[in-house]
Amino acid sequence: MMETKINSDQEIIDCLAPMKTVNKTKPEPALVKVKDIVIGGPEIIIIAGPCAVESMEQLAETAVSVSKNRAKILRGGAFKPRSSPYSFQGLGEEGLKMLREVSIRTGLPVVTEVMDTRQIEVVCQYADMLQVGSRNMHNYPLLKEVGMTRKPVLLKRGMMATIEEFLLAAEYILSQGNDQVVLCERGIRTFETSTRNTLDLSAVPMLKHLSHLPVIVDPSHGTGLNWMVPAMAKAAVAAGADGLIMEVHYKPEEALCDGQQSLSLPEFAQLMQDLKRIAQAVGRQIL
Amino acid sequence: MMETKINSDQEIIDCLAPMKTVNKTKPEPALVKVKDIVIGGPEIIIIAGPCAVESMEQLAETAVSVSKNRAKILRGGAFKPRSSPYSFQGLGEEGLKMLREVSIRTGLPVVTEVMDTRQIEVVCQYADMLQVGSRNMHNYPLLKEVGMTRKPVLLKRGMMATIEEFLLAAEYILSQGNDQVVLCERGIRTFETSTRNTLDLSAVPMLKHLSHLPVIVDPSHGTGLNWMVPAMAKAAVAAGADGLIMEVHYKPEEALCDGQQSLSLPEFAQLMQDLKRIAQAVGRQIL
Amino acid sequence: MMETKINSDQEIIDCLAPMKTVNKTKPEPALVKVKDIVIGGPEIIIIAGPCAVESMEQLAETAVSVSKNRAKILRGGAFKPRSSPYSFQGLGEEGLKMLREVSIRTGLPVVTEVMDTRQIEVVCQYADMLQVGSRNMHNYPLLKEVGMTRKPVLLKRGMMATIEEFLLAAEYILSQGNDQVVLCERGIRTFETSTRNTLDLSAVPMLKHLSHLPVIVDPSHGTGLNWMVPAMAKAAVAAGADGLIMEVHYKPEEALCDGQQSLSLPEFAQLMQDLKRIAQAVGRQIL
Amino acid sequence: MMETKINSDQEIIDCLAPMKTVNKTKPEPALVKVKDIVIGGPEIIIIAGPCAVESMEQLAETAVSVSKNRAKILRGGAFKPRSSPYSFQGLGEEGLKMLREVSIRTGLPVVTEVMDTRQIEVVCQYADMLQVGSRNMHNYPLLKEVGMTRKPVLLKRGMMATIEEFLLAAEYILSQGNDQVVLCERGIRTFETSTRNTLDLSAVPMLKHLSHLPVIVDPSHGTGLNWMVPAMAKAAVAAGADGLIMEVHYKPEEALCDGQQSLSLPEFAQLMQDLKRIAQAVGRQIL
Repeated sequence: MMETKINSDQEIIDCLAPMKTVNKTKPEPALVKVKDIVIGGPEIIIIAGPCAVESMEQLAETAVSVSKNRAKILRGGAFKPRSSPYSFQGLGEEGLKMLREVSIRTGLPVVTEVMDTRQIEVVCQYADMLQVGSRNMHNYPLLKEVGMTRKPVLLKRGMMATIEEFLLAAEYILSQGNDQVVLCERGIRTFETSTRNTLDLSAVPMLKHLSHLPVIVDPSHGTGLNWMVPAMAKAAVAAGADGLIMEVHYKPEEALCDGQQSLSLPEFAQLMQDLKRIAQAVGRQIL
Repeated sequence: MMETKINSDQEIIDCLAPMKTVNKTKPEPALVKVKDIVIGGPEIIIIAGPCAVESMEQLAETAVSVSKNRAKILRGGAFKPRSSPYSFQGLGEEGLKMLREVSIRTGLPVVTEVMDTRQIEVVCQYADMLQVGSRNMHNYPLLKEVGMTRKPVLLKRGMMATIEEFLLAAEYILSQGNDQVVLCERGIRTFETSTRNTLDLSAVPMLKHLSHLPVIVDPSHGTGLNWMVPAMAKAAVAAGADGLIMEVHYKPEEALCDGQQSLSLPEFAQLMQDLKRIAQAVGRQIL
Repeated sequence: MMETKINSDQEIIDCLAPMKTVNKTKPEPALVKVKDIVIGGPEIIIIAGPCAVESMEQLAETAVSVSKNRAKILRGGAFKPRSSPYSFQGLGEEGLKMLREVSIRTGLPVVTEVMDTRQIEVVCQYADMLQVGSRNMHNYPLLKEVGMTRKPVLLKRGMMATIEEFLLAAEYILSQGNDQVVLCERGIRTFETSTRNTLDLSAVPMLKHLSHLPVIVDPSHGTGLNWMVPAMAKAAVAAGADGLIMEVHYKPEEALCDGQQSLSLPEFAQLMQDLKRIAQAVGRQIL
Repeated sequence: MMETKINSDQEIIDCLAPMKTVNKTKPEPALVKVKDIVIGGPEIIIIAGPCAVESMEQLAETAVSVSKNRAKILRGGAFKPRSSPYSFQGLGEEGLKMLREVSIRTGLPVVTEVMDTRQIEVVCQYADMLQVGSRNMHNYPLLKEVGMTRKPVLLKRGMMATIEEFLLAAEYILSQGNDQVVLCERGIRTFETSTRNTLDLSAVPMLKHLSHLPVIVDPSHGTGLNWMVPAMAKAAVAAGADGLIMEVHYKPEEALCDGQQSLSLPEFAQLMQDLKRIAQAVGRQIL
């Protein structure tokens, strides 16, 4: 009888058998280094910044504030994957330059998305970490190509990817020799429409059960609702996440992209206070 | 452009407008009393016990142990909804009697499932709280009938129910004059097969946003995997849940039902230690 | 490698092994008789009528017209499962009486929904076939109880039930000695919101592959859109369905329930012409 | 009350308002020409061939047979998107050359998948139609780039894409000046595991309701089961599809990829006979 639809541990292990690197054969969990920031160690790493880079003022003001409040990496999109060709598509290389400049000013390393194999070279010139977004998790040429760089990679789960497919996507990167991969749960698509996606926090313990890679959570895309981000950020840390990536904007109501899910600067500052207590309660820390 | 599929607050409020009770018009969150236990106040309430009542020994040993470790309500099924007519269907009234006897011995009030309008009378004789299970969340005659009793009700979200449908199901109970309803998130059905269900923890802040009723979480059914229950139990409390309901069995490997997702007695004891720290980190307590 | 998530035939057969009746061990497909109408033979059987019985005029005008256009069974709800307690809940026994009267007048047997074990007796007095609706597919006491009657049963698939769970629900009825069960695919819940449900027509060949029971399709609930009903009705017959159940209303724009998905009388008449040609193309007929 | 989750026509039209080309403002449905084959006219166009090009023998034998049985376009993958980096990834340019050669020999135009912007130039040299696969439906740089070619494009629906997102993906192509786009429904991901995907045939009438582009269906990926392909192929034509794309292999049991869902040559021949009758029943034809 298939009373439940759970795959047995053995089935999951069998399916992962060909994976040479995304598994638990390594005795220690992987540590991923983004410049001097270590993801996967005892410290909970917070990545924060705007959805899209819009202007120097926007980026710099946001970066300075999140840095003061213990964010360790700056996020910001220069190439934006938008459902409609008529939506704002990002500033491109101009945005990358702003990220670099603000990174130098604040000391925060930067992570930004790459959507096309042809963009990798230019993005590598400016960014400290490459993001492969949810819509590209199944884009195998892109995965292979970022696997050939020596930049750490933030790999987001496809919005309808199984845990197994997610790990196999990581394997595409690792198979090319790049073992600096961070997995990011960012919400999956379900029948529920009160939130933008359904944040699958059980992915955190499951990915850690099956793989040695660090796991972070994106409660901004995971919920689509800024008022809900704090509750889910706390839950993610309690579930064992190694970090969070969150959208923060100095003027959320004026954001060109995803303002509905962006925290304001004071909201972010408050949340970081709350997260410190959760981190301690699970034996971790936010420095 | 429908860039996102989120319903606006206004749409959700409009849809809930006819709900006379399941909403925020009451200035204070509801407190639900199960004998002298209060759900919805500052204390996190833990409900624990076996999936199904199997024998006096099993029930009593489990109950004594979870009670020692600060569980406040005993769970145990006498009438079991099983996918197959050839699976164990529960002990029926004999099981109810065991629940009553163990309740008297340990002082723990008991919650047990009612599946049929014709069972309500007998279940009310033995139980302190009625559970309407996930498979019956859309069973409107049953909802109305438990709404006519004066027992508190634990209403589990249907595995396929939207947040809106879940609140409307609660409204069926409230509309009959019974305002002692606790909502329980227990996982929804998605494409993901590595867990039994996908535990939707964003339901916790969303339900509290839209309703005044207490909200608890069932990480046992929500994951189907006992090793994952602790991570998700902690996450649920961090997300703001008012309590948890968990399956605990004195010999999980011998359980007639759902042993794969049941905690052993020592696992439960350890988890309760960890939960105390999370509760404190969010300004709550486990007494 | 689990490259695909399909369960092998062997896995599905294993899971159905305990099913004593819902399987292919019988050499012949089952024929279900509703008075003198046979479902599961060479004739495609069309069930039509309003979502809810509203008045004698509405029911009688609709029934006379669909009968003239070769519908063979009349549908109409007297007890209506509604998401909200404040929506129209059906006329109850008064509605059953209207169904009986119109059945006598037109010669059409009637099928109507039963939602509660306590309603079965009264519904059996008036109806020729009992419907168990989508929301009650997991209501095991109800399934057992209709299994104890000697009325044929129309069992609708739960909106989030797997094929296996659907067959096990049928098994609950058959296990009580009632082998007159017709399975009905009526759309499942997915992420897609442009239709009310996603009509899973692959359920038709799959159910026929695994079971000997007749299978019909409900394109009205399956799509929620009256203009889409004809396309999906034709597709269902082409896929091998033994019949269709469709909502038809003499004044759809005034319907108290589901008018958006009801065909008008002329639309139904036109569709029946088109369906005759599809039935012939697959070696069946509409008489 | 949001009793149903259907978006109103007005909402869908609003969301499509910025779409300059994927809509019904054109008085006539689009005709897409692949060499001298017209998709979108009265003729139902059948595309057939192996999942992956494996050898000249395999491709040629299959092509000759499907051509004799009225397939009008040859399919075959040279670049294969595989979940695992350790699975067969296709023959690359060597496979493209085989496609070209067999195309010349049989007179069938060929469609093949392009996965990376850098592959477009070489694929255009050999193929008559470019396929953008399900995993790349959200790959906006790729969509734009195929929009800059003057080859017709077969765009498959993402396994997780809403109808709206699907049309917006087509809009990315059209916005670059290429209006020769055929939409292909190929199954969506749901909770159901008895089939590989859930073939959403309601997408056919919905896409034709909202757009002027031709719509075809892929019952091979849509079901994952070769024995189910005929039933769903017939259903697709009955639902109004302008064509089908199906996997056919001269030795399915030896296929390097997706043999489980491939028709054998005799199975394909038989199906084409059956499809002719369905096409006639809906006023179309297979020549």
